[in-house]
Amino acid sequence: MKAAIQRSMESSVLAELVRVVGAKEVLVDIEERALYGYDATIHRFVPDAVVRVGSLKEVCDVLQICRQAHLPVVPRGAATGLSGGVLPVRGGVMLDMGRLQRIREINREDLYAVVEAGVTVERFAEAVQETGLFFPPDPSSARASTMGGGVAENAGGPHAFKYGVFRDYVLGLTAVKMDGTVVRTGGKTVKNVSGYDLTRLLVGSEGTLAVVVDATVRLIPAPKAKRTLLTAYDRLDDAAASVSQIIARGMQPAALEFIDDASMRVVEDYLHLGLPLDAEALLLIEVDGSEAEVSRQADEITALCESLNARSVKVAVSEAEAAGLWKARKSISSAVARIKPSKVSEDATVPRSQIPAMVRKLKEIAQHYEVDLVVFGHAGDGNLHPNIMCDETNQEEMGRVWQAVAEIFAVTLELGGTLTGEHGVGTMKAPFMQWEHGEEGLAVMRAIKNAWDPDHLLNPGKLFPEDAPPWPVSLEPWESRVKHRGTSWPT
Amino acid sequence: MKAAIQRSMESSVLAELVRVVGAKEVLVDIEERALYGYDATIHRFVPDAVVRVGSLKEVCDVLQICRQAHLPVVPRGAATGLSGGVLPVRGGVMLDMGRLQRIREINREDLYAVVEAGVTVERFAEAVQETGLFFPPDPSSARASTMGGGVAENAGGPHAFKYGVFRDYVLGLTAVKMDGTVVRTGGKTVKNVSGYDLTRLLVGSEGTLAVVVDATVRLIPAPKAKRTLLTAYDRLDDAAASVSQIIARGMQPAALEFIDDASMRVVEDYLHLGLPLDAEALLLIEVDGSEAEVSRQADEITALCESLNARSVKVAVSEAEAAGLWKARKSISSAVARIKPSKVSEDATVPRSQIPAMVRKLKEIAQHYEVDLVVFGHAGDGNLHPNIMCDETNQEEMGRVWQAVAEIFAVTLELGGTLTGEHGVGTMKAPFMQWEHGEEGLAVMRAIKNAWDPDHLLNPGKLFPEDAPPWPVSLEPWESRVKHRGTSWPT
Repeated sequence: MKAAIQRSMESSVLAELVRVVGAKEVLVDIEERALYGYDATIHRFVPDAVVRVGSLKEVCDVLQICRQAHLPVVPRGAATGLSGGVLPVRGGVMLDMGRLQRIREINREDLYAVVEAGVTVERFAEAVQETGLFFPPDPSSARASTMGGGVAENAGGPHAFKYGVFRDYVLGLTAVKMDGTVVRTGGKTVKNVSGYDLTRLLVGSEGTLAVVVDATVRLIPAPKAKRTLLTAYDRLDDAAASVSQIIARGMQPAALEFIDDASMRVVEDYLHLGLPLDAEALLLIEVDGSEAEVSRQADEITALCESLNARSVKVAVSEAEAAGLWKARKSISSAVARIKPSKVSEDATVPRSQIPAMVRKLKEIAQHYEVDLVVFGHAGDGNLHPNIMCDETNQEEMGRVWQAVAEIFAVTLELGGTLTGEHGVGTMKAPFMQWEHGEEGLAVMRAIKNAWDPDHLLNPGKLFPEDAPPWPVSLEPWESRVKHRGTSWPT
Repeated sequence: MKAAIQRSMESSVLAELVRVVGAKEVLVDIEERALYGYDATIHRFVPDAVVRVGSLKEVCDVLQICRQAHLPVVPRGAATGLSGGVLPVRGGVMLDMGRLQRIREINREDLYAVVEAGVTVERFAEAVQETGLFFPPDPSSARASTMGGGVAENAGGPHAFKYGVFRDYVLGLTAVKMDGTVVRTGGKTVKNVSGYDLTRLLVGSEGTLAVVVDATVRLIPAPKAKRTLLTAYDRLDDAAASVSQIIARGMQPAALEFIDDASMRVVEDYLHLGLPLDAEALLLIEVDGSEAEVSRQADEITALCESLNARSVKVAVSEAEAAGLWKARKSISSAVARIKPSKVSEDATVPRSQIPAMVRKLKEIAQHYEVDLVVFGHAGDGNLHPNIMCDETNQEEMGRVWQAVAEIFAVTLELGGTLTGEHGVGTMKAPFMQWEHGEEGLAVMRAIKNAWDPDHLLNPGKLFPEDAPPWPVSLEPWESRVKHRGTSWPT
């Protein structure tokens, strides 16, 4: 099949693509194509060609050409994803959305903006901020990752606990189906119940249903003030109790981040911030609102954490100090990357009350499979990021890593959680989808896929277990244990 | 076809239904069935039988029986809908969800609840409130309308401006497809990107894809204090400017309601509240948050409205006074119902800045078609409720009413809005769906319908123009004018 694709690419199809976007926007040299075979997972696949599209019409034309030639198409933002969502596992055409760079409108009165897929989340959020408004979703990759990618993966970030994720801000989309038809979903109003919610169906669909070209997103007034706190605990349970108590008292911090002892050690080793290495957990808490409100909440949280045995509570009194406190949290990923050549980042998400149980299980798993594991993440959402540091060239070690990951997914589901809180399914979680959704859930998802893309040409190999690359180790040890909730929940 | 249905209902099918739910839960007498032919629109259709289901298993069994007998099924909550969503336009079985009355869980720590479809929104919200938490969606029908209905219609209410609608609170659903299979969507966590968002696809799908049996919904901390203000304006534009300025200053009131002069007159005539009848508009504004915050915001809003020529600003200093101020707004529907035997309630929604233009257009339409029209609604969301008072037995008058409604929809779309902000499409807006979504949008929605319910047995005659009862007057005068935005938007 690969040979067949290559042949057709080399002939008329390539010429047609060049006719649509121009010769310099079609890349076929292996050196150039190879640069499009990566994302933030450890897997690599090389597309047969890269086409850099610059308008809605170009997207339509390219999709029609590829459909006719029966070529897979993979839409791509900045490829910062952690689930393999943009890996061209079947080759075909990589559709680079990077030329779609316009912020078309920021409407201060009606509180919405229209932005093209290739604009980075950070550039967009900054442009919004300059008008005094706020676009809250803030994935850690925001500096590089694109609005189109955020929509495709339904990205989150630290501020999701109070403000929600991409899904909660996308009002409407312009998207192109594999057959080249344009679908305009939603609109400019928050209230809109006109027909099926195609907008939220496309959000998080990982480029498997349609190619998102632009998004109309809701904006909100920016909070006037914020305050950041960093608290350290000798015992994990006290940190968890602090999270529970903050919420029980009716406070809704903008961020409620958790950092475990192992994460602290890798960061300290890297940056020498003076972190309390013998503590079991850190919480990074940000409150926002009016100046009076944040100062009252910061006082209340300080007293509360101290009463729950926090060994120290630091409150930032300036923006520079706040940035300093955030540094420990924001540097974990780069610090982790220094330890070993590779890492596997997960985003298992459990109901908040299960965080201590989950963290303990993760430490047991690390010990049992002898893998290097750190845990951090969004405590307010129960959204943890276990990161396993490893060497992808060491086959024996990787075998243990893949077993540990399978065990993490099984435990997550047993604790009432979900495989993925914000990274998406991609290729990396596809083999586990039946554990969470059962055959009934997957059957409905397959029917929806068939409705949008009957030939399965758009971003193939993602989301569905039957299409995705198989898991590197046997999943048999877990299959009997993981009961699909469809049959186990009460009726 | 009707006769065929009747025959099969009278024989083995009826016996099978009785076997599943028991004889007393199957209603076939015309007196009883006729009570299920209504909703809050002026249309009437009688189902062939009513089946009152009390469990997930009963729903599965009933759907399987009906599918085998090729009988339409219409799921029904409290039938308070304003778009014809539960009208049994093809006869068949009315599936009364009213026996599903359990609030299964309210989890204070993880901030979610699990509630069955038949529980009223008010009972659920009160149970949540007793735990110190808050479920914000508050459709005006909350006392009677059900959680299942709220999910099916993606219901809103006055507090949507700050807090959002049903869609923003539903985390997971248990739903049954027409073939009797159970689909469990979503979960208990806010962050969840595991596969297509079946949860939000079902929210607002008006019972046309699956029957929702229970919902897992997100709860939030209750605001500690609130303050209600009622402001009166000589000029509509000053009221609109006040709304804009409140938002421009970064305030986000919990409610921002608009009442026009005609609405005021019908309410005053009914309740003698002492409303300023020569004013052009009232705004009802509710702010919430901490005690300090609401009192600061109430002061700021008072000053702002006065500077924008508000002739009076009343601030409620007690809950009783707040209820008094809300009375004007909450009594409009019943006051309107006194004037003439019938009313047609719409929920055209436009970008907020278009409210003055929309209100003016509505007054022109009322004059042009000589219909009795009042306007009120959710100014913060641009979600207006033009209500036309009429006499459904007067054919000549009704002809003008249906023309006026068509004109309202055309104007709404021309102003960048949507046919329906919170009432749903049902039978009443189905004839206009192509105006908003074009053939491309409708084609995708049809494909999704086919994926879930290939025989089109679940709630037929809704949402799609080809299935719905035709509009009573010709739409030809508008067809050439309304250009689908799919072709008219910039690319």
